[in-house]
Amino acid sequence: MESDVYSRKCGSRQVLDRIGDRWSVLVVLTLAEGTKRYGELAQRIEGVSQKMLTQTLRALERDGLVTRTVYASVPPRVDYALTDLGRSLLDLVAGLGSWATTHLAEVEAARARYDAR
Amino acid sequence: MESDVYSRKCGSRQVLDRIGDRWSVLVVLTLAEGTKRYGELAQRIEGVSQKMLTQTLRALERDGLVTRTVYASVPPRVDYALTDLGRSLLDLVAGLGSWATTHLAEVEAARARYDAR
Repeated sequence: MESDVYSRKCGSRQVLDRIGDRWSVLVVLTLAEGTKRYGELAQRIEGVSQKMLTQTLRALERDGLVTRTVYASVPPRVDYALTDLGRSLLDLVAGLGSWATTHLAEVEAARARYDAR
Repeated sequence: MESDVYSRKCGSRQVLDRIGDRWSVLVVLTLAEGTKRYGELAQRIEGVSQKMLTQTLRALERDGLVTRTVYASVPPRVDYALTDLGRSLLDLVAGLGSWATTHLAEVEAARARYDAR
């Protein structure tokens, strides 16, 4: 079967749903800097709820993009890092971040025009 | 102020939230083929509800990525097309779609390993 991102049943659409998710993008961007603890991710990514961050990390781990390492310390320490597969996404995800920064003024001008109609 | 995609208050984060949204990605990919009517978009993008498609198109129009043209026919015809700004996103968005297709087998293998633990 040919891959079809438009088809709900196709796995590539499910993969796209994962990588085209705002929280996944921000987690991958943060882990690009190196291994992070759960608390560091929560602090860096403003506005993410504990529930959403936990769900996002679990989905990224299940998809093989992120590893989760638990250290038997007190309190337990949990580290997250990108896998090779996760790192293969970095250029794309960094591109999205950089597009957002580069074109911010144009988007804001478009919004102002739209809202003034 | 420096742009910071991690900050909830920064505009670039809001732009990233828009372009890192599964429905936006699929709409932009579809419009890469050329101008489409509302009904064509609804048919092409499986699983999108009318409410979500309408919301996504309105947000993309407000952000200056998509134009909406209404023709005074009966029934009215509404066409959507990418703007130059929208087209500047194409390489990135196509890259996400192509990553999803290329790495599907790896992601599915990772899921099977995770679920078997």
